[in-house]
Amino acid sequence: MKALVLTADWDPRPGYVPSDWEKTTRKAITGSSVWRHPRLEVKEAPQPRIGPDEVLLRVRACGVCGSDIHFYETDEQGYILYPGLTRFPTILGHEFSGEVVEVGSAVKDLKVGDRVTAEEMIWCGHCRPCRDGFPNQCLNLEEIGFTIPGAFAEYIAVGAKYCWKLDELEERYPGQRLFEAGALVEPCSVAYNCVFVRAGGFPPGGNVAIFGQGPIGLAAAAECKAAGAARVIVFETSATRRELGLKVGADYAFDPREVVPHEVILELTRGLGADLLVEAAGAPEVTVPEMELALAVDGKIAQVGRAARSVPIYLERFQVRHAQFFGSQGHSGNGIFPHVISMMAAGLIDLTKVITARYSLDQTVEAIQASTGRSGGKIMVCIP
Amino acid sequence: MKALVLTADWDPRPGYVPSDWEKTTRKAITGSSVWRHPRLEVKEAPQPRIGPDEVLLRVRACGVCGSDIHFYETDEQGYILYPGLTRFPTILGHEFSGEVVEVGSAVKDLKVGDRVTAEEMIWCGHCRPCRDGFPNQCLNLEEIGFTIPGAFAEYIAVGAKYCWKLDELEERYPGQRLFEAGALVEPCSVAYNCVFVRAGGFPPGGNVAIFGQGPIGLAAAAECKAAGAARVIVFETSATRRELGLKVGADYAFDPREVVPHEVILELTRGLGADLLVEAAGAPEVTVPEMELALAVDGKIAQVGRAARSVPIYLERFQVRHAQFFGSQGHSGNGIFPHVISMMAAGLIDLTKVITARYSLDQTVEAIQASTGRSGGKIMVCIP
Repeated sequence: MKALVLTADWDPRPGYVPSDWEKTTRKAITGSSVWRHPRLEVKEAPQPRIGPDEVLLRVRACGVCGSDIHFYETDEQGYILYPGLTRFPTILGHEFSGEVVEVGSAVKDLKVGDRVTAEEMIWCGHCRPCRDGFPNQCLNLEEIGFTIPGAFAEYIAVGAKYCWKLDELEERYPGQRLFEAGALVEPCSVAYNCVFVRAGGFPPGGNVAIFGQGPIGLAAAAECKAAGAARVIVFETSATRRELGLKVGADYAFDPREVVPHEVILELTRGLGADLLVEAAGAPEVTVPEMELALAVDGKIAQVGRAARSVPIYLERFQVRHAQFFGSQGHSGNGIFPHVISMMAAGLIDLTKVITARYSLDQTVEAIQASTGRSGGKIMVCIP
Repeated sequence: MKALVLTADWDPRPGYVPSDWEKTTRKAITGSSVWRHPRLEVKEAPQPRIGPDEVLLRVRACGVCGSDIHFYETDEQGYILYPGLTRFPTILGHEFSGEVVEVGSAVKDLKVGDRVTAEEMIWCGHCRPCRDGFPNQCLNLEEIGFTIPGAFAEYIAVGAKYCWKLDELEERYPGQRLFEAGALVEPCSVAYNCVFVRAGGFPPGGNVAIFGQGPIGLAAAAECKAAGAARVIVFETSATRRELGLKVGADYAFDPREVVPHEVILELTRGLGADLLVEAAGAPEVTVPEMELALAVDGKIAQVGRAARSVPIYLERFQVRHAQFFGSQGHSGNGIFPHVISMMAAGLIDLTKVITARYSLDQTVEAIQASTGRSGGKIMVCIP
């Protein structure tokens, strides 16, 4: 079958000593410290075989994620930018949907022809965090498109328990559009996990500010508006993305280079500040100092953008404002996928509005290249 | 009456522009930016008169707080170190207890002879944060011993609604000891607010690490042990304070200069890390990097020590560990004072063990001087 394969060299940075676990598993915990000279190519790869608990999906749509860009781009030394768990070579792609074409012998809840999306985090279910209800912190985590083969491919094998049916979406998203909406469930779930599960949401009628309107920030804006925010205020440097933010649910969109964000938030909220501030820009050194000054009493800052570096935080501010900070990762567990699908099916959110370009599987490298500007919406690889 | 009066000069630092509110109220929001050349003296002050909602207390005990030291000590430019809300001159002292000697006409629940302690945060009860249930974030806050006359004095007038009776303590703490225990309710409540209200506690059987064993850290250690922590691990540079920590409830006490704290925590918890980490040292630039590396999955860091400066935080760590940060201030509301009194009465915590010296009211300046070493326990001013 055809697939987008990423190859890179295991070449730990000077000073970085891989742990025994990293050496044994060939999984790098901090990818950007180890993987060098990435090469991306659409080429022939062996068609996956399924185990008894798995299904084989024919992939129908797969979105380009910021992480995919961080595999493509490198720093001056040639290291990938993505700071997380990775093992190469592998097939990229993890925001996907498809139809079931083969079912493992032990699978009970899926049948050939079912249309599904799937979690990207392959949590084991038996380690301590999994048993404690924290699948996103699984100690034996594999990640589709990061450590195991992904969905920029004709076929993918996935454990049935990670799949979620898309039937509910049928009426609102007919035909191929169902698969495009289905491929957006994953990024919408990352935002949902951040806003509603990790940070515990906000009081309906409260005020929300979102820094960054990439796909996760856009999803957060849509979800917050749908969940009863009085005002959703977004900050984004790209004019296209600001427009997309207003399209999916934001009430106000500003270029943070043209305004002082905390002043804008305080003005729009009559001095109260924001009940929830979402960092979806991956630039906390710039955004957090503004967010600190815009915290409502009992306000929350939730970090979902990734930034593998320390940033200065004024902790006193969290004391004075009865404020809290939450770090968010992943999208599994807690009813997240099915609730996102239901929000889409009910018309509460519609992220298909942010799809700004569609590519074929053969053009996947171009699709990733086209995303590097970080100025448009979601770029989707579609396989009709 | 006799009282410890603090006088200081209103002399905003170069570059600090007091707000209109600060100029009108003469209250400095960031005391250390405004108040210079503090003078402390025990001298004659007018005996307070009570309003209809107030009671007059004869003060029987008042502890020296870290804040009092921060009024006494200055930086090289002569500014006080305390970074919070302040208006001078005033009488210092806010960790106190006494007996009611006069009752205002509208007071229903207190009578002459009642023995009480009182909150230090005089929340208005009608601003937005108060009505929302956040008295510690009151917009019209007055603070006993900070903006209004305190309890290093023979008498103090206090609103009846801020007072809590100490009857429960009678059996365990007879005579003058009841007042000493009563004067410890306030610092124990600051710790209780941090651990149980703001951070939401920890699972009984979980692991707690506390950085700093000043009075607040000591109270936190005692309370966490009483609330079912499997291990309470404390870090403190003073040997005396480490001993006090072990005396009130800590299982392990280390000098952070002699060990690597996060390694110790991971070793003692078999790699799990701490479910709750309390910053009670006021040195987050040193403690937080260690705490970040010792976070259990779903772990919490709670900041109760004060430090008016930005410190570098590795937010990615909070994402990977499903972790959260809480800022804590104050002690009012949420049943905190009565629960602390009940913990003391039930023998769950006994902070009178940390009283390392007693002084008379005349010796209050010496009592504060004696506290500047930050190496002993609680120093108490007693008025038999």
